[in-house]
Amino acid sequence: MDVSPILEGDRRALARVLTQIENDTEAGRAAMQALFSHTGRAHLVGITGAPGTGKSSLVNRLAQHYRHLETPLRIAVVAVDPSSPFTGGAVLGDRIRMVELSGDPGVFVRSMASRGTLGGLARTTAGLVRAFDAAGYDVVLIETVGAGQAEVDIARLADTTVVVEAPGLGDDIQAIKAGILEIADVLVINKADRPGVENTERALKNMLQLAHPVRRVFRHHGRTEPVEAEAPAGEIWIPPVLKSVASDGTGVPELAAAIADHRNYLKESGDLVRRERARLDNELALRIRERLVDRWRLESGNGRYEAMLDRLVAREISPEEATTALAGGER
Amino acid sequence: MDVSPILEGDRRALARVLTQIENDTEAGRAAMQALFSHTGRAHLVGITGAPGTGKSSLVNRLAQHYRHLETPLRIAVVAVDPSSPFTGGAVLGDRIRMVELSGDPGVFVRSMASRGTLGGLARTTAGLVRAFDAAGYDVVLIETVGAGQAEVDIARLADTTVVVEAPGLGDDIQAIKAGILEIADVLVINKADRPGVENTERALKNMLQLAHPVRRVFRHHGRTEPVEAEAPAGEIWIPPVLKSVASDGTGVPELAAAIADHRNYLKESGDLVRRERARLDNELALRIRERLVDRWRLESGNGRYEAMLDRLVAREISPEEATTALAGGER
Repeated sequence: MDVSPILEGDRRALARVLTQIENDTEAGRAAMQALFSHTGRAHLVGITGAPGTGKSSLVNRLAQHYRHLETPLRIAVVAVDPSSPFTGGAVLGDRIRMVELSGDPGVFVRSMASRGTLGGLARTTAGLVRAFDAAGYDVVLIETVGAGQAEVDIARLADTTVVVEAPGLGDDIQAIKAGILEIADVLVINKADRPGVENTERALKNMLQLAHPVRRVFRHHGRTEPVEAEAPAGEIWIPPVLKSVASDGTGVPELAAAIADHRNYLKESGDLVRRERARLDNELALRIRERLVDRWRLESGNGRYEAMLDRLVAREISPEEATTALAGGER
Repeated sequence: MDVSPILEGDRRALARVLTQIENDTEAGRAAMQALFSHTGRAHLVGITGAPGTGKSSLVNRLAQHYRHLETPLRIAVVAVDPSSPFTGGAVLGDRIRMVELSGDPGVFVRSMASRGTLGGLARTTAGLVRAFDAAGYDVVLIETVGAGQAEVDIARLADTTVVVEAPGLGDDIQAIKAGILEIADVLVINKADRPGVENTERALKNMLQLAHPVRRVFRHHGRTEPVEAEAPAGEIWIPPVLKSVASDGTGVPELAAAIADHRNYLKESGDLVRRERARLDNELALRIRERLVDRWRLESGNGRYEAMLDRLVAREISPEEATTALAGGER
């Protein structure tokens, strides 16, 4: 597949391929293969937070900031809408956005509905991000909503994860968000002109202390389990807690600076390379698993599976016995 | 493996096997196999809701209610603590509970920390539930916290899912919870003596209307995608919205009645059998996938995988090419 128009900055060609990737078509998969060798350069920044934190406005401001630098950066935005796992429909999706940036050829915004499984969502997002990376966008902002596994999966995708909070959220929400805090490389309290900002700041700093700094650094290695022995002295990233007012742009340059600092930290500590390797490791393992299952499906008739399932439902055999009958023994 | 002590009601033997299952030991897997033919009788009831809704007290009250029936039911409780996906530690876990029930031989409470992946959590929970089922417990109450994929996975595990709300939650939380509402078979507003209960009731009923009833019935068939053609006329389950005050037991008999009604609905509509089949289908498919991957791992040396990953990181080959090199072609 000829992807040279995309590499040369043809927006319509890029848009077409993004749709093909989102729909997981044959052409989309072919394009991904062809684009792969051109990836690995963009800074992937995840921006996540609950509805009502003003996260979309902040993404908008951040993009504007990058566009007004002395050497403007090319910015892509992938906005992932919230959805229910069952209906596949957007709950509070606001797809009208980024008005100030429309018409700027250095910005590309892609708003996607999250459909199907959460795993599928993370995969499609990964595909879009890779296409933007290959197309030469310097920063890819990946915006997600809410608290859950999708955010964790997307945090694994990003080099830097920004968690957006807002003043005035109750204790219940804070509890739900505890998991989200642990994926944060940068924390920002948006709507910082509202009352209660000091309380939110204090609460966030307290919660950050709960996550032991020695553990934190290992998260970047793409491992689930922290490995204490590898702690490099003095190389620990402490997530800063910033404040912003997206409506007037206050705090946006500082946020951009913190994001850049984190990227530098990742580079210097070697984590950028380790994270990239962990991501590709994860992808390769998933693909191998799918390949094995697909081939097994082709080789074994569907009727045998259903017959075995019938016997399982009747409790004539155990799950282990059914597995061995269908897919062979352990070696 | 001799599981007869468990089948005969030996609590210490059961406790030992539960620990083996939770730790995924060889003995635990053997016990699961041996217990499997004795499963399929318990009513599996998921109880989920955000922290602060008083869900644990409600579970406690519900268990007491079942114990004080004319023919008392044997009750098991599996309490899944909230945890972060990264540290594996409980965030706000309250493991001291069920005081009123301690010493009652007809109740068995198992509080588990959720560790490892979300998928692993659902699997371990499924194992514990199956052991309780085989051991002859009539109702297994599966308590989970928060909003996310874990709740959805556990809802797939349960016959009946109860979602607990509380008055006075803000709009932001409501939005997060939209996904949770869709897994509810029974909704209960606990702490119903608090101000704001009418607002919460109205909000829940409004949100329920968003989920079209024709879609709802198909969810029970274990499918992600609703299949409209199969709609059995007049057999639609509309989730009731109940009120309770767990601190004094108000509304608990009505909640138990709604749970029993739902079980009857599942039986009469044939959904109980379909759900059970869908669960076993899902488990068998997962096991086959793992078996294929495990055998592939044994057959291919680890060195080859690492070498291929190196080439992938260097962008010398694409993920697709690496997959084919390691796991063979598509057929």
